Amino acid sequence: MFESHFQTFTDSADKSKGAARLAELRAELGRRGLDGFLIPRSDEHQNEYVPRCAERLSWLTGFTGSAGMAIVLQEIATILVDGRYTLQVRDQVDVQAFEPLNSSDVHPDHWLEKHLRAGMRIAYDPWLHTPSQVARYQKAIEAAGATLVATAPNPVDAIWHDRPAPPLAPIRLHPEKFAGKAAAAKLAHVQKHIGKAHALVLSDPHSIAWIFNIRGSDVAHTPIALCFALVPHEGRATIFVDHRKVNEELRSALHELVDFAAPDALIPALENYGRDKALLRFDAATAPVRLVQAFEAFGGKAEVAPDPTANMKARKTKAELRGMRAAHRRDGVAVTQFLCWLAREAPKGKQTEITATQALETFRRATKKLKDISFPTISGMGPNGAIVHYRVTQATDRKLSKGLFLIDSGAQYEDGTTDITRTIAIGKPSVEMRDRYTRVLKGHIAIVTSTFPHGISGAQLDSFARRALWDVGLDFDHGTGHGVGSYLSVHEGPQRISKLGHVALEPGMVLSNEPGYYKTNAYGIRLENLIVVEERKISGAERKMLGFENLTLAPFDLALVEPKLLSDDELRWLNSYHARVRKELSPKLDATTRKWLAAATKAVKR
Amino acid sequence: MFESHFQTFTDSADKSKGAARLAELRAELGRRGLDGFLIPRSDEHQNEYVPRCAERLSWLTGFTGSAGMAIVLQEIATILVDGRYTLQVRDQVDVQAFEPLNSSDVHPDHWLEKHLRAGMRIAYDPWLHTPSQVARYQKAIEAAGATLVATAPNPVDAIWHDRPAPPLAPIRLHPEKFAGKAAAAKLAHVQKHIGKAHALVLSDPHSIAWIFNIRGSDVAHTPIALCFALVPHEGRATIFVDHRKVNEELRSALHELVDFAAPDALIPALENYGRDKALLRFDAATAPVRLVQAFEAFGGKAEVAPDPTANMKARKTKAELRGMRAAHRRDGVAVTQFLCWLAREAPKGKQTEITATQALETFRRATKKLKDISFPTISGMGPNGAIVHYRVTQATDRKLSKGLFLIDSGAQYEDGTTDITRTIAIGKPSVEMRDRYTRVLKGHIAIVTSTFPHGISGAQLDSFARRALWDVGLDFDHGTGHGVGSYLSVHEGPQRISKLGHVALEPGMVLSNEPGYYKTNAYGIRLENLIVVEERKISGAERKMLGFENLTLAPFDLALVEPKLLSDDELRWLNSYHARVRKELSPKLDATTRKWLAAATKAVKR
Repeated sequence: MFESHFQTFTDSADKSKGAARLAELRAELGRRGLDGFLIPRSDEHQNEYVPRCAERLSWLTGFTGSAGMAIVLQEIATILVDGRYTLQVRDQVDVQAFEPLNSSDVHPDHWLEKHLRAGMRIAYDPWLHTPSQVARYQKAIEAAGATLVATAPNPVDAIWHDRPAPPLAPIRLHPEKFAGKAAAAKLAHVQKHIGKAHALVLSDPHSIAWIFNIRGSDVAHTPIALCFALVPHEGRATIFVDHRKVNEELRSALHELVDFAAPDALIPALENYGRDKALLRFDAATAPVRLVQAFEAFGGKAEVAPDPTANMKARKTKAELRGMRAAHRRDGVAVTQFLCWLAREAPKGKQTEITATQALETFRRATKKLKDISFPTISGMGPNGAIVHYRVTQATDRKLSKGLFLIDSGAQYEDGTTDITRTIAIGKPSVEMRDRYTRVLKGHIAIVTSTFPHGISGAQLDSFARRALWDVGLDFDHGTGHGVGSYLSVHEGPQRISKLGHVALEPGMVLSNEPGYYKTNAYGIRLENLIVVEERKISGAERKMLGFENLTLAPFDLALVEPKLLSDDELRWLNSYHARVRKELSPKLDATTRKWLAAATKAVKR
Repeated sequence: MFESHFQTFTDSADKSKGAARLAELRAELGRRGLDGFLIPRSDEHQNEYVPRCAERLSWLTGFTGSAGMAIVLQEIATILVDGRYTLQVRDQVDVQAFEPLNSSDVHPDHWLEKHLRAGMRIAYDPWLHTPSQVARYQKAIEAAGATLVATAPNPVDAIWHDRPAPPLAPIRLHPEKFAGKAAAAKLAHVQKHIGKAHALVLSDPHSIAWIFNIRGSDVAHTPIALCFALVPHEGRATIFVDHRKVNEELRSALHELVDFAAPDALIPALENYGRDKALLRFDAATAPVRLVQAFEAFGGKAEVAPDPTANMKARKTKAELRGMRAAHRRDGVAVTQFLCWLAREAPKGKQTEITATQALETFRRATKKLKDISFPTISGMGPNGAIVHYRVTQATDRKLSKGLFLIDSGAQYEDGTTDITRTIAIGKPSVEMRDRYTRVLKGHIAIVTSTFPHGISGAQLDSFARRALWDVGLDFDHGTGHGVGSYLSVHEGPQRISKLGHVALEPGMVLSNEPGYYKTNAYGIRLENLIVVEERKISGAERKMLGFENLTLAPFDLALVEPKLLSDDELRWLNSYHARVRKELSPKLDATTRKWLAAATKAVKR
């Protein structure tokens, strides 16, 4: 009855081939006179989701996590992953071939400094690293008396005989009724912010999608088209993309703004700018060092700085916010149907993490508007809920049973992107679970109700989400919120709510609000809504103030709320939020779900 | 009856001489073939309080603020000060001679880039700037095609004929019963943290005072002896100081740890290290570039990094904390006597900001333990209270009258340093004043009652102090707290509670907790206690937690507290704090004050 179209539950890792492929890679390096090679997880755009042809780390080692790097020398090889993946890497990788290390304990720099010998030549693929990454490796490698050299084509590609072709999904127009601003106006605005540079080199496909109101299907879960672009100070921009991805409609819609050129034309174009001794601006976060090197080799002067479109993209237009609200009402209906189904089915003992994921996606597909899920659903029963980045597979699937069930999921609709986490008690929760849940809820409320002056960053709000946990000696080890795109990536910068979020919050920025609590081997709690920064008019205010509008509509599990722990203001917020959820969603629900929602959102008293 | 021994109320600024001195300086620069000169407010140690012989900026321009810089060219001269001093500078300086600018609007770099012409030679005194300051000026000056050159002796000194001699106050031992750790143990500990360097160059006199348990009287308000020191990886350290400041007792107490050498011997010693191609570590915050240059000129390799003793000094010993508590009880008695006197005398209309300051110091001197005040008292009636860094002079003195009176003051006792601000209503306060005061108090309570895991910095707590103000569109434009020394500077790093305070808080660190609210031209509110970071044992805690012990003991003005705005927990904290103040201070008070305190600290109910 229920099924998943947008995610699988198989573990694609195959550790059995690691040793053989490693040997082949070493032979290839030997043929090139190289003593070592860096294999990052990144693609040419430092994307979170990469096309299959860029899954070199996974193909070589078996490791499927979203971040990590292997370093292969002739005698030794390692795979460095962060704390999220230290267990997973040991399951997926042949540890005899690749020694797994925690990159928080052993930074790649230090590993290199320790294992290299003078005279060694260590190679990297200059399409897969940014200039600052290369500078850092170079320092470590030179400290060891070795040399860092670029190599092409990628040695992994040379031995990966059945490597998939790059994706060729057609690029489509993103309607202006959703974008809220014409591509011509956006391009003109970006051009005003290029500064002293002669042109801006766009290497982040999200930026290109945003400026030109285009979307693609080259990677999972994020509707981007993989491409680069050059935006001169004035006049037409050039998008470098395979012509098979560009249809006539797109070409004619953009023909006053954009020339399309083949991907191969990018390097010669940069070399030409170099010959003119031009100043070009590159994106520090995503530009492949290959681009900067090609340009500078001919005398160009590179300015490597943050992509100026990131901040523009982050401040959603009125139409985008209207779309986000519509998407969240639609998504709230699907999630509420799911929660009602779960309340009925989970106690029967027949459902699992996977069937719940399938059910939720099916309710979302029933909206007829679902384009994709915005990331693989995190569906964690009991102990699996305590694994912050858990991904369920057939091997790990747990039956839903007495305890806490955490489900973190999102949808891509053409009018907006959603991301919501709910934690549900199956059976009667313990006093401790209710205490922890209520403290997480207090943190969630502290964020959404906060009012703050212009200029304040997410770093200055993050602790509000933690105070009720800190009071009893608890905390959670992730940020409180990330930025969210508009029918783009569910993880979008520069805004975030975290101790590292030093960008000022501005009206129209969308963020997640997702404090949590995780008890290892027992259960996880996370409560996530999306919120949007809005101007706040306060009588008597001496500063220009901001606050948050709540976007996400779905009930919290009242069985897990301990009203005695809530202040009057917090109780009032909870009841008013639930009244709004009921009012906005009920007209769109079937009778059964409507009845369930009425009970699930009844006002709480002390 | 009351008098001040440790501060004056005159405005020493004399703007009448600025133009003549500027002309003399220009002639001196001309004789040296220089086109310009930088005159910072700093001394050779980047001190907050500087000796009179280092008051070059004030002598030249008249400006007496604690930060600023003049730049003198042959045709034009400017004085750049920060937002605190933009009004004061216009009162104190001949603006025809020195154009006053706000350094937040016009950074010295930008002024230089704008006003220099190619070929100009701009000079600086290499004793008065750190390497990073010089690097920054150099960049701007070279961008204009000009050259930055060191010059010696300081051209201002060459024309300042009655320049005072450097201070020669005798250095005295700081008893181990107060320090809590012998100099030998501290030196050994510091030596373990020098890292790869052959020696540590100490340029911060506070660090030298701390390591060797010595104190001096070379500058106002901070008991330091101006000197430099060299600490080798092992063996005896050398302190470079005028022999007239070193008596036999000191020499013999430290003779196993320290060689004393003349100040002139420092540069040759660094040159010798340079000849040996040594690696020396300099303090990034205070080292004069002169030292680094002398060392590097002979082939040495400088590591310019934070002073490793700053963090050690910040974590007070048990004895220092015991001393701090005793100092705060003693100071609390004096402050409470003052507050009782103020409550009686202020309504009579005969007192002023100055007489109040004199009264407070007199109560403190009556303890027989007062060594100095820890900074010039900020005593601001009504509108003057809204000037965050106000310093009362005969010219600005206001009569105490109906409204709010803010008094921020501190003491130096041999066992500890204090810093306290109270805001007192004279007559019946308005509803608005009570609202604002109570919101500031809520912020104060939110800080002192916060519990947080190890690793958390002051930046992550700062917003707790602001939330109740943000709720109604208000804020304050300074950090919530600064570090405090132990019979050392009342402003001590690295710990602070501010959005810039990224150093983890550690047990034993003393901080101020001083949220405020300032209504320009009307009144100021600031409520300041000192607090110390302590370990917190919490039953069931999953993290190692920290919290704050409160040090300062003196009542808050209950006439300004609106109980309806306080939560149950906040009300409980206030009543329990007042009960403690009453209990600890009453035995040491005269009957009148004791009776007043009992009423001033009565439990508040809603």
